[in-house]
Amino acid sequence: MALIRSVFQDELDGVSQSLMDLTEMVAVSISKATESILNCDLKLAEEVIASDDTIDDFQHALDARIIDIIARQQPVASDLRALVTALRMSADLERMGDMSHHVAKITRLRHPDAAIPAELTASFKQMGEAAEKIARKTGSVIASRDTEVALQVEKDDDEMDKLHRQLIGTLVDPNWKHGVESAIDLTLLGRYYERYADHAVSVSRRVYYLVTGKYA
Amino acid sequence: MALIRSVFQDELDGVSQSLMDLTEMVAVSISKATESILNCDLKLAEEVIASDDTIDDFQHALDARIIDIIARQQPVASDLRALVTALRMSADLERMGDMSHHVAKITRLRHPDAAIPAELTASFKQMGEAAEKIARKTGSVIASRDTEVALQVEKDDDEMDKLHRQLIGTLVDPNWKHGVESAIDLTLLGRYYERYADHAVSVSRRVYYLVTGKYA
Repeated sequence: MALIRSVFQDELDGVSQSLMDLTEMVAVSISKATESILNCDLKLAEEVIASDDTIDDFQHALDARIIDIIARQQPVASDLRALVTALRMSADLERMGDMSHHVAKITRLRHPDAAIPAELTASFKQMGEAAEKIARKTGSVIASRDTEVALQVEKDDDEMDKLHRQLIGTLVDPNWKHGVESAIDLTLLGRYYERYADHAVSVSRRVYYLVTGKYA
Repeated sequence: MALIRSVFQDELDGVSQSLMDLTEMVAVSISKATESILNCDLKLAEEVIASDDTIDDFQHALDARIIDIIARQQPVASDLRALVTALRMSADLERMGDMSHHVAKITRLRHPDAAIPAELTASFKQMGEAAEKIARKTGSVIASRDTEVALQVEKDDDEMDKLHRQLIGTLVDPNWKHGVESAIDLTLLGRYYERYADHAVSVSRRVYYLVTGKYA
């Protein structure tokens, strides 16, 4: 019995490790997507677009593994809850990869033109950094199950929301001179970064709930 | 043993029924959200916003029930797969409710002004109808497990994508005269309808996969 528990524990640890790996993959993808859009780098954009398939495949394999563990080990109570939560976290992380992919597609759509006007590059640089930071912190929450860090992720998301509001403020300012098409691109880009961070918050909240049994 | 299977089958049927109920709730919510934004109807918008909590609570209760079924019945193979898929479908449906909620919030934000200029009301009416239709069809896919209808949902989504492209075309036309703020609202609204339909497609595809073991 002790041996079975131990194998099961190894499997749970393996799931956590894969969730951390997936988090790292989407942290890298948003970082590269941001770089691609700031530098109109088509090659990098294509790399991000291609890597989304890798992320999707990784998630599908992870989900299949989790379902297989449930089927074989027939866990109850907290172990089952942890595995179901892992499925939800992988869905959030996969969706973060989609957001990177969406950003990279705008780089490609506008190439060789810049999707982001010069006066907004600093703002998007900050959003990209905030997104990467929140993903990395989420990875450390999965690793450590540290509820304090999980709460910090909420604060990081407030920072992203603030950057997003500032962006919209710039777009609706009467002095906006880049026209409607650019404003549409930037509205969508802003939403992608905001959603990216929302999904990271969702992952952190799930860890918080697993550890404490309460909602953050 | 026959009795146990039968109770389990009742529980699975109950889950399907709840997914259909949830689908109906989000079909009603997008219908009302569309009506609220077309008629600048604040009362209706508030109703949609309030109903999102009901939808979320319904989903949480359903998910808890599904996890409880997995814990008690310890299903394997296709039964387990069906239950895990039900969790994913409920997440898609809950997200469709969020999209209705987002539409209603724009009604409220712009009230008593109209968020949608007169020349685009017909277009949003069509998107609202397409969204409601796709949700109802998705409900019938869950009920019937009819793979032909599941494939029709993909076509309905193509129709939504076409409406969405037409909308963006109108916004970026040099004759657009309603300014950037309006274009931002309409870009986000367009995305909410598009995402609503995407989630419905996702639900239909999951049913298709459960029935056929293949991706649509």
